This record gives sequence, structure tokens and C-alpha cells, in this order.
Amino acid sequence: MPRSKTQNEKVKDERREKILAGALSLFANKGLSATRISDISVKTGMSQGLVYHYFPSKEDIFVKLIGDALAKMNEAALNLEKMEIPAEMKVRLAVKGLMEGLIHSPAASDYYFLMTQTALSESFPAEAREMIRKENDVKYNVMTRIFSQGQVEGSVKQVPAEELATILFSLVNGLALNKAYYREQFQLPDLKPVLGIFLVEP
Amino acid sequence: MPRSKTQNEKVKDERREKILAGALSLFANKGLSATRISDISVKTGMSQGLVYHYFPSKEDIFVKLIGDALAKMNEAALNLEKMEIPAEMKVRLAVKGLMEGLIHSPAASDYYFLMTQTALSESFPAEAREMIRKENDVKYNVMTRIFSQGQVEGSVKQVPAEELATILFSLVNGLALNKAYYREQFQLPDLKPVLGIFLVEP
Repeated sequence: MPRSKTQNEKVKDERREKILAGALSLFANKGLSATRISDISVKTGMSQGLVYHYFPSKEDIFVKLIGDALAKMNEAALNLEKMEIPAEMKVRLAVKGLMEGLIHSPAASDYYFLMTQTALSESFPAEAREMIRKENDVKYNVMTRIFSQGQVEGSVKQVPAEELATILFSLVNGLALNKAYYREQFQLPDLKPVLGIFLVEP
Repeated sequence: MPRSKTQNEKVKDERREKILAGALSLFANKGLSATRISDISVKTGMSQGLVYHYFPSKEDIFVKLIGDALAKMNEAALNLEKMEIPAEMKVRLAVKGLMEGLIHSPAASDYYFLMTQTALSESFPAEAREMIRKENDVKYNVMTRIFSQGQVEGSVKQVPAEELATILFSLVNGLALNKAYYREQFQLPDLKPVLGIFLVEP
């Protein structure tokens, strides 16, 4: 019996995800320039032709990875902001979500590393760099507004809210890269001293 | 009148420094693989032959940059540890030195970026990667001992000292990469909330 339309879509989505996951790991470890479609083929167990069927080039895979990561991060930030809870709770959820995300999602470190490289080096696709330039500020702006609101509510420390956002995202990026390096040896620090950077009563 | 031996040494040192500084900026912005000796020649205003006289290859320049950065960081850490002052003061000096170093030394961000890439990606010289593997732990171990001592003295918060070291170096690395991205827009956060991560009385 031939696959139904829904089944076909499911197979396609799964293949696309498999290519993206395999390529992410290769890009992070070998680098974009050293990764060939043939490596992605070996890594995913799919033929090169099948890989090309989904993505015309490795650069397209790369751009898709960066775009997805930015979209996911910004969606989470905007959803957090919309919640009808005190700013203090939003800060707790943000810190917990960002830090525990490093452990729960094994690919998180690889994403942070690719984002860092793309943001800083011209040797990555300009299209991906441009997406970061346009979208990276969203999460900073959301957290700056949440920290400001918390200062009004008296739960967040009186430090310029932009600086608190810079500390938060710098720390999480640094921890992600640290985890990428130390791997199984990496211990996620306790959340409490980190919450203490931001909250009057961590 | 020909240059004296001392003058000759001075000229050589200056040229070597100039090559290293120019190459650091190129490696950080264009990437190692896209950087040619001819780019370093243009950047430094020195002939390609003269660049090759000091370094046989761009990889040798790269390895020297990583080696120098590790040596400088470890020397600073070990000197700090030897000082006859309370652990609290050492923590203050470490946080201040690491954070303000990002501003005072314009090349600091580039160094952090190259170190991060070398540590994580196989597309950089294995010799540099091996140096990081051997020497990166020195600064972690020094700060872990200082935090432990501060806990004995009652000035450092009761959080596992290794975790405090992980937070410190992750935050500084994250801030360095943030500065590399935002450049002139980057604002170094106030030291006080950062000291508050570690010290009972920041």
C-alpha cells in the first residue's frame, strides 16, 4: 500500500530533521568549510542524492540551522514576556530554561558555537550573519523589559537592565561553549548564585 | 652606522609583534583558512618574504598566538595566587582584571574567540588544540583554590568552588564574545553584581 500524503509529509520532516541534526554536529566539530555533503550522507545514512533533494547545498543547511535556532529562541522569549506572572517569575523561568536547556538538549552547545562563529567571522554564510544581525536583539530587548519591570516591582536588583541582559546571555553562551569543550565532565552550576545576580531574593 | 645587536633585537621583536597583532585580527575576522600570508603582508605593511622570515607558515603564527595567550593567562593566575592577601581581595582582583581586561586590551576579544574556536573545532591546528588541552585547566584550578580558601575565611559564598570557577570563566568568555560582536556598542557591565556571584559582601 502506498504511503498516504500525511505519512509522506512525516517521512520528509523526519529526513529533514535527520539531515539538520547530522550537519549541526559536523559543522560544530569539523567546521563548515571542511564538511562535505558526503560527510552528511555518511553521518545520516542517507544517499548524497537524497541529501541534495532536501537541501541544494551545505550552506543552505547551515542557514536553516541558524534560522531555526533564532526563531526558537525568540519565540520562547516573546512567549515568556506575554505570560501573566510577576517579572520575578519570568526571570526565574528564563534562567532555568536557558541553563537547563544546555543539559536537556544535547545539541544546544553546538548551536551556540555555530551562532557565535557566524556572528563573528566572515567565513560563514552572509545570509546567516544577516539573520543574526536582525534577530539577535529580540531576546536582549525582551529580557531588558522584564528586568525593568522587575525593578518597578521591587524584585530585581537596581543595576541597569541592559547590563543584566548582557550578563545573562553572556553567561549562558559562555556556559554552552564550556560544555562543548568539557562535554561529560561539564557540571551545570547551581542556579541559585546565578539567580542572585538578578534577583533581590534569589 | 649599522644597527647594534640590541637595536637589531628590538627591531626583530617589534616586527614579530606586528605580525602577531595583524594576524590575530585577520584570523578572528576572516578565519584561519581564508587568511593568506599575503593578507598578513598587506595588513602589516611588511613584504611576504619578511613575514616568512619570522614565521614559516600561518599555522605557526596561529600556534604562537594561542601559546602566548595561555602563558599570559596562567602567569597572571599563578601570580595572583602567590600574593599575600586575603582570598576576598584575590577574587576582587581576578574579576576586575578579567573584566576590565576586555576593555583595556582591544585584542582581548579576538584572543578569546580564537581560543574558543581552537578548543572546539578540529579545523584549527592540532598543536594549538593540544596546548589548550594541557594548559586550560591551570586558571580553573587556581580560581577553585582561591574560592575554597575564601570559603574557609568566610568571604566567599558556600557554592562548590569548581562551580564558581566555571561561572567566572564562562561569563568572561561570553562577555568577550559579546564585545567582539557588539564592538563599540558593547557596555562592560558593572562589576558589583558580578562580584555578588562570589562574595558574601560584594
